[in-house]
Amino acid sequence: MKPTIQKDLKDLLLTGLKDDGFGLDWTTLGTSSVKNRQSLTAVISAKACGVFLGETLALAAEAASVEIGLPFKVRALSSDGQAVKPGTKVSEWKGSAAGILALERPYLNLASYLSGIATRTRVLVDTVESEWKRKKHSGIAPRVTSTRKILPHYRDAAISAVMAGGGFAHRVSLSGGVLIKENHIAAAGSIRDAVEGARSVAPHGLKIEVEVRNLSELKQALHCKVEIIMLDNFTPSEVGKAVASIASFDYSPLVECSGGISEKTIAAYALPGVHILSIGGLTHSVTALDLSLLVK
Amino acid sequence: MKPTIQKDLKDLLLTGLKDDGFGLDWTTLGTSSVKNRQSLTAVISAKACGVFLGETLALAAEAASVEIGLPFKVRALSSDGQAVKPGTKVSEWKGSAAGILALERPYLNLASYLSGIATRTRVLVDTVESEWKRKKHSGIAPRVTSTRKILPHYRDAAISAVMAGGGFAHRVSLSGGVLIKENHIAAAGSIRDAVEGARSVAPHGLKIEVEVRNLSELKQALHCKVEIIMLDNFTPSEVGKAVASIASFDYSPLVECSGGISEKTIAAYALPGVHILSIGGLTHSVTALDLSLLVK
Amino acid sequence: MKPTIQKDLKDLLLTGLKDDGFGLDWTTLGTSSVKNRQSLTAVISAKACGVFLGETLALAAEAASVEIGLPFKVRALSSDGQAVKPGTKVSEWKGSAAGILALERPYLNLASYLSGIATRTRVLVDTVESEWKRKKHSGIAPRVTSTRKILPHYRDAAISAVMAGGGFAHRVSLSGGVLIKENHIAAAGSIRDAVEGARSVAPHGLKIEVEVRNLSELKQALHCKVEIIMLDNFTPSEVGKAVASIASFDYSPLVECSGGISEKTIAAYALPGVHILSIGGLTHSVTALDLSLLVK
Amino acid sequence: MKPTIQKDLKDLLLTGLKDDGFGLDWTTLGTSSVKNRQSLTAVISAKACGVFLGETLALAAEAASVEIGLPFKVRALSSDGQAVKPGTKVSEWKGSAAGILALERPYLNLASYLSGIATRTRVLVDTVESEWKRKKHSGIAPRVTSTRKILPHYRDAAISAVMAGGGFAHRVSLSGGVLIKENHIAAAGSIRDAVEGARSVAPHGLKIEVEVRNLSELKQALHCKVEIIMLDNFTPSEVGKAVASIASFDYSPLVECSGGISEKTIAAYALPGVHILSIGGLTHSVTALDLSLLVK
Amino acid sequence: MKPTIQKDLKDLLLTGLKDDGFGLDWTTLGTSSVKNRQSLTAVISAKACGVFLGETLALAAEAASVEIGLPFKVRALSSDGQAVKPGTKVSEWKGSAAGILALERPYLNLASYLSGIATRTRVLVDTVESEWKRKKHSGIAPRVTSTRKILPHYRDAAISAVMAGGGFAHRVSLSGGVLIKENHIAAAGSIRDAVEGARSVAPHGLKIEVEVRNLSELKQALHCKVEIIMLDNFTPSEVGKAVASIASFDYSPLVECSGGISEKTIAAYALPGVHILSIGGLTHSVTALDLSLLVK
Amino acid sequence: MKPTIQKDLKDLLLTGLKDDGFGLDWTTLGTSSVKNRQSLTAVISAKACGVFLGETLALAAEAASVEIGLPFKVRALSSDGQAVKPGTKVSEWKGSAAGILALERPYLNLASYLSGIATRTRVLVDTVESEWKRKKHSGIAPRVTSTRKILPHYRDAAISAVMAGGGFAHRVSLSGGVLIKENHIAAAGSIRDAVEGARSVAPHGLKIEVEVRNLSELKQALHCKVEIIMLDNFTPSEVGKAVASIASFDYSPLVECSGGISEKTIAAYALPGVHILSIGGLTHSVTALDLSLLVK
Repeated sequence: MKPTIQKDLKDLLLTGLKDDGFGLDWTTLGTSSVKNRQSLTAVISAKACGVFLGETLALAAEAASVEIGLPFKVRALSSDGQAVKPGTKVSEWKGSAAGILALERPYLNLASYLSGIATRTRVLVDTVESEWKRKKHSGIAPRVTSTRKILPHYRDAAISAVMAGGGFAHRVSLSGGVLIKENHIAAAGSIRDAVEGARSVAPHGLKIEVEVRNLSELKQALHCKVEIIMLDNFTPSEVGKAVASIASFDYSPLVECSGGISEKTIAAYALPGVHILSIGGLTHSVTALDLSLLVK
Repeated sequence: MKPTIQKDLKDLLLTGLKDDGFGLDWTTLGTSSVKNRQSLTAVISAKACGVFLGETLALAAEAASVEIGLPFKVRALSSDGQAVKPGTKVSEWKGSAAGILALERPYLNLASYLSGIATRTRVLVDTVESEWKRKKHSGIAPRVTSTRKILPHYRDAAISAVMAGGGFAHRVSLSGGVLIKENHIAAAGSIRDAVEGARSVAPHGLKIEVEVRNLSELKQALHCKVEIIMLDNFTPSEVGKAVASIASFDYSPLVECSGGISEKTIAAYALPGVHILSIGGLTHSVTALDLSLLVK
Repeated sequence: MKPTIQKDLKDLLLTGLKDDGFGLDWTTLGTSSVKNRQSLTAVISAKACGVFLGETLALAAEAASVEIGLPFKVRALSSDGQAVKPGTKVSEWKGSAAGILALERPYLNLASYLSGIATRTRVLVDTVESEWKRKKHSGIAPRVTSTRKILPHYRDAAISAVMAGGGFAHRVSLSGGVLIKENHIAAAGSIRDAVEGARSVAPHGLKIEVEVRNLSELKQALHCKVEIIMLDNFTPSEVGKAVASIASFDYSPLVECSGGISEKTIAAYALPGVHILSIGGLTHSVTALDLSLLVK
Repeated sequence: MKPTIQKDLKDLLLTGLKDDGFGLDWTTLGTSSVKNRQSLTAVISAKACGVFLGETLALAAEAASVEIGLPFKVRALSSDGQAVKPGTKVSEWKGSAAGILALERPYLNLASYLSGIATRTRVLVDTVESEWKRKKHSGIAPRVTSTRKILPHYRDAAISAVMAGGGFAHRVSLSGGVLIKENHIAAAGSIRDAVEGARSVAPHGLKIEVEVRNLSELKQALHCKVEIIMLDNFTPSEVGKAVASIASFDYSPLVECSGGISEKTIAAYALPGVHILSIGGLTHSVTALDLSLLVK
Repeated sequence: MKPTIQKDLKDLLLTGLKDDGFGLDWTTLGTSSVKNRQSLTAVISAKACGVFLGETLALAAEAASVEIGLPFKVRALSSDGQAVKPGTKVSEWKGSAAGILALERPYLNLASYLSGIATRTRVLVDTVESEWKRKKHSGIAPRVTSTRKILPHYRDAAISAVMAGGGFAHRVSLSGGVLIKENHIAAAGSIRDAVEGARSVAPHGLKIEVEVRNLSELKQALHCKVEIIMLDNFTPSEVGKAVASIASFDYSPLVECSGGISEKTIAAYALPGVHILSIGGLTHSVTALDLSLLVK
Repeated sequence: MKPTIQKDLKDLLLTGLKDDGFGLDWTTLGTSSVKNRQSLTAVISAKACGVFLGETLALAAEAASVEIGLPFKVRALSSDGQAVKPGTKVSEWKGSAAGILALERPYLNLASYLSGIATRTRVLVDTVESEWKRKKHSGIAPRVTSTRKILPHYRDAAISAVMAGGGFAHRVSLSGGVLIKENHIAAAGSIRDAVEGARSVAPHGLKIEVEVRNLSELKQALHCKVEIIMLDNFTPSEVGKAVASIASFDYSPLVECSGGISEKTIAAYALPGVHILSIGGLTHSVTALDLSLLVK
């Protein structure tokens, strides 16, 4: 089962159409001798390797085409999360020519963005898992997660893309998690005060996570029995020391590494005792996956 | 004078707050022993080199802070379009602690995205201009322009970012320009039919642009006296031949190159006779500029 | 092919229903002994001569009827842009009585407004074309275009109506055209400065249009080689002189007349050398075309 | 005290700005060498005789200018409902040049539309009152009222304009009045059934109004003691007969005439015994009042 | 025929889904091994006695399920306004498991709220009618009506619920009725001034209602021949005196009692000469009717 | 520090004004001889005992009054969460008479609703705490929490009200918590499968909660080491047995009781070993707190 964001995607597509002033598309109006509802078939293909995320989006495009009175039908040729390469056909659209041409650009803009997120996530997840196997570690390799570094209007969609690439969500919103950072600790006076304060107000279903910058802060947090430790900007070797320090305590918090993790460095962070690797760049620096639509 | 998109940016910030479920931010609620309106001063700085685009956005954040009843004041320390490097202070915020902490993430998400676009544009523009000077060409170097490959909700903001980096807008929407592409030619039957059709319907203030894939199509378009020629996916040497071919005609259309232009290849496209270099990646593949907020 | 504004029209109809507080329509609630979905057939007819623009709108009404859970089916009896006279049947609606009665007034309000615009445009276009033939001018008669004098929420719909009457769009928005007016010239310092300023920032696909108030300004504009000249509030004889003056230059800009053009005066402006006649009144002073719905 | 629709008007102005794509106004961007917030003074004047309705709208424009970050201040020079003639100054705006130029067109579009409604209403009201005095009738002359023939998004604004011209509102919405028409009578079976049905469901604060097409229907309605009679498409002499017939009954309903009332015929309908004259054309066929803004 | 608020209800359901962040429902995502569109059948039943109001709402849920791309079909097992008891099946849903589980909570929240209003109304209406019969009064028992004490977004829906329980609407909005209260009288100077002022501006289809606090005010209002008298916070015996006083006047206004009416006291207010009993608590203090959904 | 929902509250107030059609408030228009901005002072007081929640809402009303162009100033006389009794003054408003009268009803509707929730919560919280002290239990008494049984548009506001009354939030949305219920277990096949499934997809910051209906299910859940156990519809004595059973396990999950908890029964559930008492009725069945506004 996948996140159910088809409605969000339809709304984004309709906004894309509005941004385009599509009602008065002079080029199409001038070059089509045909009527509005004349039929057409088009195929969308990948032009690069990556993870495709445009199947549900295509259903949303189908729904949007009905909404604007220019309906077409979609046939999925690749599924969300599927690996594609140049030439892989991903979707076939059949119906209103005007509808297909209007939705082409908004669809491609969104699909290439979401697929770009999924693709980058998949690369990082695969790197972690390969390293894990290569080193023959037991247990489960660390999760790769996104952060809240996501553009307004794109929260759920971008998280879905991370999941399609094999990654996981961090807290979805400020009301869906507790993450005590530097500024919060400063405001509360100490890690202990911050943790107690958070425990006294947060819903009972949320774990308390604390971001630490060094081993001293780490120990303070562990003394508070926080459920999750975030090692902020630790080098891999510092992570190793931190994990050892944690092991000396009488409970087992989750351990997250954050900061400085990229395609180049992630393997070094895939260490036993680390459970989560969070990467802002998954969603804030996206390379679009090249997709194109061709009228048959 | 700059594009006037402060209202758009405020709306995006408010959406960012909504995505964040900021009303019930358990961490801040739990760790602040202070009242909602307690004052705070924070400074935002760059952590990388690039072109900053967050001055107007900060004014929008100030307006958003009033809207949510948690007001703070903004003092600009860098201006939109200014070059920054690690450590450059860009903005100072003073006022409601809750307001500053709530708007921190939406502001940074947007500022780093827009600055990322401006930064990439600046690099490409500078490359073109250096090459132009190096080769001692006369006249004006080609414009670097964006395309319509922009996420829904971000059209005007992204174009503003391209402009802040020294680039230019292409048509803003389908109703604000005419660009005849492969599919339109197919629909109309021929380049001549497509051009005549477009001329017969488009507002008189719009030039007719035709995308051509080879020299044969180029000549057909020139025979129609189209105001703008787009050379689609031409190599630099093919562009040279096209420019020569165009020079043999009795009028001087604008010439645009599109497809395959990147940091690596753009210098080779900065050729006399070429007026516009359009690059989808300016807006579809953005590397965020690293910015961070620190409470004083 | 026609502008694709069915979605806009549906949104306007739904707003019309909301304005009407249609959910609690006491009269219909009290006088119908029938159930919500009981069927009905109604026919909409013209009660005056004019150009009908309500076919796409009726499809939008059909879609709106589904949206509110009171569906009916529409059969077009006249098409958009068709000439009608008293008694001409234009649309047949069959289905939910409550749906038909609820949408009757919003549909008629919009259809009579849009048809009113189309009708007035047609009269002016016909006058221009008759005069052109009568005078045996060669080439194409001037276009009749609308302006931006359109009520908020009605931009695309009103332009579509002008087109249905045989007219053309002027720039659709400020981002889709360049028109330098008196205030801009004052701000820039001179016509030359204004034109150069506009050229330096406008997208390459937009022509530069300058509004001139006299022959002196006209010459300045021509020296700048602006693509379009707007003769503002020129009498027909002054237009004649302007056209002669333009002919003495070495290029051929488009020439637009604006100001003081109405049913009474337009024939006098249909002069060779004039390409565009723009008329604010097409959209700011509309006489609704009388249409009515009758339950069979 | 006047209707309080400043918020509605601000929303309409902001929509007008959006329709205009005002953020990327190439002309203003290109011709202003000045910064966004540079100051300017502009004066709006009437260019024709009529009733002005743009004072509250100017306050809404002031509020909108703040909303978009380009603030200016408004000084009212004429008040809502005031008679103006060519040259009458109505409003002075002082502040952000970009703000004033952006809001100029949306303001003028709305002000000339609303003033157009007020102006036409005033003419009709004055005609009725002159006729009443001329004939030396006692009591109060009939009210001139609008109908529901108002474009979506403009219900309250248009009614306010009718009131500014000395007219009155009819029911504002379907939930704010009961008006039994031909179709309702057909649905209910008879006038009696329709009236009883409406009485059984309508809120107790609403009077029952019935539209009648002839004297026979009039009598049926009078037998039901309906509070308001609408004489639909009666000639003035038929109205006279109807009034006489009503006088023979033992109660005094309000009497409304509707259909065929215009500047030419309204005096003939200003008859004793008639209380309301309703005219769809007040709002469906509006001639804009000419207003213009000049930068000082 | 019932109020036609299916669209309002669908919008409320979609808002409910948004409040729930339903796109990333971790529990359902994690526990369903099944695909998004796998089928399911669920039955909704009452768990308490009351008046059901969820039939139209279920159709709205069906429409919402299509909107979010997770469609199911609804079969009504009870109709709006029907009496139910524990175990009464009210609705069967068949289709997308994800759609049914997502809409379960928003549907139940709304249905139990609306049914709660209908249930309370029914109890009060039945009490009035029983008392009326018990006392063998002739004529019609007083209406039970709601007030404007309704939460934002719920005006029409709550009024529909009151009607489903056998009650009536008071004025739907400030533009759909005239009710002169204490503050208005103070502002106008006297009851006479207030009534004359209201008559001079209100649409002709609205009756004038005045709230009086004692017999002296009552007489003033009666001298103004107001169409409706509201006896504010009168005890039953004071109401009796007021009714007697009214009977001594030469016309028969409607009489409304308001304030202090509840399940305990309403029978005492069901007096001849009283036409309306209005009760804010019908909508401001609602006890939800217990309903639950069970997957078959 | 309190939840920051002033913006939400302002939006609700503006919706309330729209529901009221406040622009054409005939009563106020007719009875005020004064101008729109004439000043007034009004005081809002409690008319019953309870917990007040209207201080932030009054600030939102102040902001809304500016938004509609009828500004007034608010002075808080009671603070959010404060106990009030009949006669306690809670807020003073000073400024535009029209603004105060327009916002009176929406403010009171919302304030009495939110205060009603806070009041009921306070009663239940006090009962639990009294019982805890009376029985001399050590540790912390169970939390009283709300559920997701909240009307659309009111999620954050209602949770804030619960908190103002001393209660706590449950998960705010489906994306902010994991709660495995009967239907999920059925879908997954077993409690173990459901828990493993949820763990495999949920963000790492969320605890897993499982609803159990009997001791057998309880044991299965405990064997899965779920972080939270919800005892669904257990009687107090069954809860006792469950707590004993839990104590025999080697870890200490949180224990929540849900179902059948009310003012009458809650004391019996305040048992050692129980951490959370969740009550749908806190938000689905609200008795409004009586508040009224009086013009001075």
